[in-house]
Amino acid sequence: MRQRLGALGVPVPDWAEVGDRSALASFLAAHGGAAVVKTPRGGYDGKGVRVVRSAAEAEDWLAAGPLLAEELVDFRRELAQLVARRPSGDVASWPLAETVQVDGVCAEVIAPAPHAGRLADEAREIATAVADGLDVTGVLAVELFETADGGLLVNELAMRPHNSGHWTIDGAVTSQFEQHLRAVLDLPLGDTSPVHPVSVMVNVLGGPAGARMPDRYPAALAAHPDVKFHSYGKESRPGRKVGHVTATGVDAPTTRERARAAATFFDA
Amino acid sequence: MRQRLGALGVPVPDWAEVGDRSALASFLAAHGGAAVVKTPRGGYDGKGVRVVRSAAEAEDWLAAGPLLAEELVDFRRELAQLVARRPSGDVASWPLAETVQVDGVCAEVIAPAPHAGRLADEAREIATAVADGLDVTGVLAVELFETADGGLLVNELAMRPHNSGHWTIDGAVTSQFEQHLRAVLDLPLGDTSPVHPVSVMVNVLGGPAGARMPDRYPAALAAHPDVKFHSYGKESRPGRKVGHVTATGVDAPTTRERARAAATFFDA
Repeated sequence: MRQRLGALGVPVPDWAEVGDRSALASFLAAHGGAAVVKTPRGGYDGKGVRVVRSAAEAEDWLAAGPLLAEELVDFRRELAQLVARRPSGDVASWPLAETVQVDGVCAEVIAPAPHAGRLADEAREIATAVADGLDVTGVLAVELFETADGGLLVNELAMRPHNSGHWTIDGAVTSQFEQHLRAVLDLPLGDTSPVHPVSVMVNVLGGPAGARMPDRYPAALAAHPDVKFHSYGKESRPGRKVGHVTATGVDAPTTRERARAAATFFDA
Repeated sequence: MRQRLGALGVPVPDWAEVGDRSALASFLAAHGGAAVVKTPRGGYDGKGVRVVRSAAEAEDWLAAGPLLAEELVDFRRELAQLVARRPSGDVASWPLAETVQVDGVCAEVIAPAPHAGRLADEAREIATAVADGLDVTGVLAVELFETADGGLLVNELAMRPHNSGHWTIDGAVTSQFEQHLRAVLDLPLGDTSPVHPVSVMVNVLGGPAGARMPDRYPAALAAHPDVKFHSYGKESRPGRKVGHVTATGVDAPTTRERARAAATFFDA
């Protein structure tokens, strides 16, 4: 992925493939003594990712094979640009979203990303270049860092409907799921406009202990008649994504507060 | 239905059960020489309904048993008030909608009904009284006449998610289908607010000859990226409801025009 993105001219963190301790030590020395190492497979929701400050800290993973080492990016926040592309080449992009990660797992998404300014255009251009360059069919989420100096770097790609786009179910004219079907059927893509000034999605992580998410619906729905609740039908388990809630509103702070309040009904 | 509605004090057209020609002739004489006769069973989409101006015109149906005779109401337009009620008694109502019938079949729905004024409140009160009085669980559509003198009369009841409420899928915070599930599960009801100033639904009646509705999606979706297309997976057949389209917008005339234009792609 890093090779292909580099060839496309898309901004990415400095990186190297490291096959042993000395290669990782050199990378660390060249990047301020810290790096993110990633296993080539099995990485999601913070799994297969580790921040290291010495080569010894990656010794167990290096024993299994080469790793990807990346600079530890100094970022202000994380963003996600969702686009869809059909085989005939049309690309549609939703508004840039801000994603809030906790312990490597997406906790909240705010769309549009507040105060994005020119980054909204840059992110759309990057995601479109990636979708075109990789000949993507369907929905693609490009996860980005907004760096301390106000630039963008591509963090990860997700070539599918993605957690960062769940807000579109309730908050956009065309949801990422409808759009994915349009795209893979090579049908014209739908309008990606938001239908509310702000949408905030909060993941339900873990879920209520000894219960399922719908068991808490009577209280949650009564308190929040205008919030949309989505249960994935999963058993509760610490850290597991068992559902999400989406609030829509007129400004980010109050909408976020309402979404968070609704999600607390499913705390363990 | 007429007996129960009368007992609830809800305004209904004059009516009588007529068992023979002389009873129907008397009803006709007392109501300006015209009446609507309805069979007790099998009535929908204009079936089992006939306007008669002499008792002889209902002779075939009278041979099978008694009929409902109703005054032929002089109405300006037809309206539909959609509500949902859960067993614990809560009732939620969507905005009053205008329904346009062609040959006894619903062709278009405009929500909210333009220029409804005080009728919106009256319709909500009527539908709530019906839902409470009949102990309804789930979604109820109350079809109404707006009479020539500006009053309301209940035409028909539909105790289920209904064609007049399909606009809520794309146009309301809570769709009639989500609300029906909430209601039958006795969960708190969701917000029924519209998410756009106007929604217009146009039924696809008949469908494209020798084809199915999705066969026309490439052209229809390209022309109308912001319209929502719903196919019921049915074969085309003259007069059959095979799907619908919903446009949302800022005013009734332009939104209606867009919805109608989108629906023409599925003409025979």
